[in-house]
Amino acid sequence: MNYPNGQKRKPSPIQRKSNKQTDFSNRGMTLEEDINQSNKAYLQSGRAVIHKKPTPVQIVHVDFPKRSAAVIKEAYFKQASTTDYNGIYKGKYIDFEAKETRNKTSFPLSNVHEHQIKHMQQVIEHGGICFVIIRFTHHGETYLYPAKKLLPWWERQTNGGRKSIPYHIIQQEGHFIPLAFHIRVDYLSIIDEMNL
Amino acid sequence: MNYPNGQKRKPSPIQRKSNKQTDFSNRGMTLEEDINQSNKAYLQSGRAVIHKKPTPVQIVHVDFPKRSAAVIKEAYFKQASTTDYNGIYKGKYIDFEAKETRNKTSFPLSNVHEHQIKHMQQVIEHGGICFVIIRFTHHGETYLYPAKKLLPWWERQTNGGRKSIPYHIIQQEGHFIPLAFHIRVDYLSIIDEMNL
Repeated sequence: MNYPNGQKRKPSPIQRKSNKQTDFSNRGMTLEEDINQSNKAYLQSGRAVIHKKPTPVQIVHVDFPKRSAAVIKEAYFKQASTTDYNGIYKGKYIDFEAKETRNKTSFPLSNVHEHQIKHMQQVIEHGGICFVIIRFTHHGETYLYPAKKLLPWWERQTNGGRKSIPYHIIQQEGHFIPLAFHIRVDYLSIIDEMNL
Repeated sequence: MNYPNGQKRKPSPIQRKSNKQTDFSNRGMTLEEDINQSNKAYLQSGRAVIHKKPTPVQIVHVDFPKRSAAVIKEAYFKQASTTDYNGIYKGKYIDFEAKETRNKTSFPLSNVHEHQIKHMQQVIEHGGICFVIIRFTHHGETYLYPAKKLLPWWERQTNGGRKSIPYHIIQQEGHFIPLAFHIRVDYLSIIDEMNL
């Protein structure tokens, strides 16, 4: 297996050079790290303003020690009611979710929550650009999969259909995002190509 | 003083009816609650998709008890790098911050952080609708103040200018948002009027 599953730490530039692989899929960054890096690059170059939303947390107890910062002592992770990323690109609203799967043959729909599906539906209805970035860590491949294609699969699942989207469907209907150096997951160039 | 400063709990409908005031400024909801209610109403009627971002939290320690949910045991509040609210309205990207002040004569610029100002600037450059909703709790008045008007005040402040925007300027340059029942802070109707 040539592709470690995002467990390795960032190798030094020297290690990277000596790699036999010439692509960047085995640099061991998570999809989230790659997207955050890409968003930062987009922001710095003035190409787009896209941010990851903070992790939703239910705060239960906060301590206010004298002369120092408030400490959250009890809190719980909440389920997100929207997708993780949104912003503005070419004057348009852009909204997406990013998911990694170790599954080799399909993308399990359990990776996405009903709230998020509903949100995607609403964004599409309002004319926003909406999609999912899916990484198959085993294959070391990242795809942009339009929300419009995802929704029917979700619909069918709730009516007893299959609980995952086959890998080959995502290869066919999705758009492969090559990993690159300056902008690691350059999904905006895919959006440009798709003419969305 | 006829306007309590957002300390009172929501009165029952009977109490509300017997109020001498006919406006809704003294129902004791915070600006955040009012905006969340408005966003919910917009979402339900299909008028817009606008959400508040979760509070940014730096998580330091998490416990994973057996057979129960993960508990965050140590975390700290982080400064937001963007504004609190964003979404899509009439196909356009919309982005804003909401601030309450108890100050009677001006809006202190210390209510806004540099990161947020920079973010607003970027949103404007990309053609997004960007503004601040300011509530003067003492006056019981809420205004939509365009980010384009706010930025020069910030600029002047960093060059030694005054550290607040006078109340009368916000009255003149801003747009008064009347408090209403169905949609408490109907800022989208103001956006429509402004023809943004």
